[in-house]
Amino acid sequence: MGITPSSDKPQIAAKPRAGKPPQEPRASLSRSLQKGQQTRAAILDAALRLSSQRGLEGLSIGVLADAMQMSKSGVFAHFGSREELQISVIREYHNRFEAEVFMPALGEPRGMRRLRAMLDAWLQRMSVELHSGCIYISGAVEFDDRPGPVRDALADMVKSWHSALHRAIGLAVDEGHLLPDTDPPQLLFELHGLILSVHHDARFLRAPGAIERARVALCRTLERYTTPAGRALMGPVPADGAAAASRAG
Amino acid sequence: MGITPSSDKPQIAAKPRAGKPPQEPRASLSRSLQKGQQTRAAILDAALRLSSQRGLEGLSIGVLADAMQMSKSGVFAHFGSREELQISVIREYHNRFEAEVFMPALGEPRGMRRLRAMLDAWLQRMSVELHSGCIYISGAVEFDDRPGPVRDALADMVKSWHSALHRAIGLAVDEGHLLPDTDPPQLLFELHGLILSVHHDARFLRAPGAIERARVALCRTLERYTTPAGRALMGPVPADGAAAASRAG
Repeated sequence: MGITPSSDKPQIAAKPRAGKPPQEPRASLSRSLQKGQQTRAAILDAALRLSSQRGLEGLSIGVLADAMQMSKSGVFAHFGSREELQISVIREYHNRFEAEVFMPALGEPRGMRRLRAMLDAWLQRMSVELHSGCIYISGAVEFDDRPGPVRDALADMVKSWHSALHRAIGLAVDEGHLLPDTDPPQLLFELHGLILSVHHDARFLRAPGAIERARVALCRTLERYTTPAGRALMGPVPADGAAAASRAG
Repeated sequence: MGITPSSDKPQIAAKPRAGKPPQEPRASLSRSLQKGQQTRAAILDAALRLSSQRGLEGLSIGVLADAMQMSKSGVFAHFGSREELQISVIREYHNRFEAEVFMPALGEPRGMRRLRAMLDAWLQRMSVELHSGCIYISGAVEFDDRPGPVRDALADMVKSWHSALHRAIGLAVDEGHLLPDTDPPQLLFELHGLILSVHHDARFLRAPGAIERARVALCRTLERYTTPAGRALMGPVPADGAAAASRAG
């Protein structure tokens, strides 16, 4: 994560020395761009950590500059404004979420197996994020009353994830794994509630066993919409919540 | 809501005029106390509105003084610190929540009818709060990473409401309306998720039909735990989510 001191930074506009081949300045420019991208990525990484802890509204160029041991103007050079920084954090969060939760599930066959893979990975990510906080969930509360480009960016990312789940549910209906009258937004509404309930109980109430309760409830919710063919593909259903939660507690 | 100018305020320490009966100063003191309580209630009302919109962390003595057209020291006289003000807001919110959601349900017979009354009133309050925001939900996200007396006060209030629901679920088991192996915290976990999902979808995503989806899901969730005797007392189950949501949209 360390940022190399600026004295190491190659000079973009440095004149080529006499006798050097003409590709040198281009190579130097390329190295400089690469370095700039590395610095930007490192700032973004720190910004993501900070906004998971303090919320997107707690993120400022000043706080970030302190955390990175950089000058404010150094951070400004990479993100022209606080708003642009917040939107970049949301995009970075979304890219990681997609890489971790959505992409691996595409390796599973369409239908119940893919849907389960997405839901399990979502819950798994949530269990890791209980320590850091989820930007989608905290951002939704921070920005529900603040119209503007940051809210729009966040809502677009959340909606694109919801659309992916709608499609996965729809495919599971097409494959005959979920009942034909399954309404994808209704099922997603119920499943999303379980994710929100985990976040609330584990992070705010510090209640033990929230992840285990969610695993049980997720299976029960899915089961209500599942055909016998889908049930055979659903995988194991965990023991009941009371037992699981008391083990976890 | 208007606050009477301070010149109208009765003087607590005013000497009784000669020949006046001795109860006069006491009456004046009582009027003054009453006036102080009215002012405090008016400030609290404004503080509650402000923190519903901006969050508890967006609440400051300065902002509140502006909203009330009072001096900061005038507000300080009623709430010694920002923290005390935040805690008073949480208590006031809790009192109103209890009066609106919990107390009327106690008029229903124990078991399914009382539980349904509590859940319906909760959802009803949520549908009203979609415009203003729910302090329990936004506060949970604001304070999940901020230990201290404000977080503790908020968590205590939320836990006391959860305990009331645990008891109501337990009574419904005792009455034979819910299945004997019902785990109250597991059922509450699932029901609470629906409330959180309404708040998220309606307030943040501005998705139509969230309340209708929650009504459908609430019945389906309860049904899974319900005995035939309980089912007879459960009341009408709304039409399926897709139809209800498209009507609402």
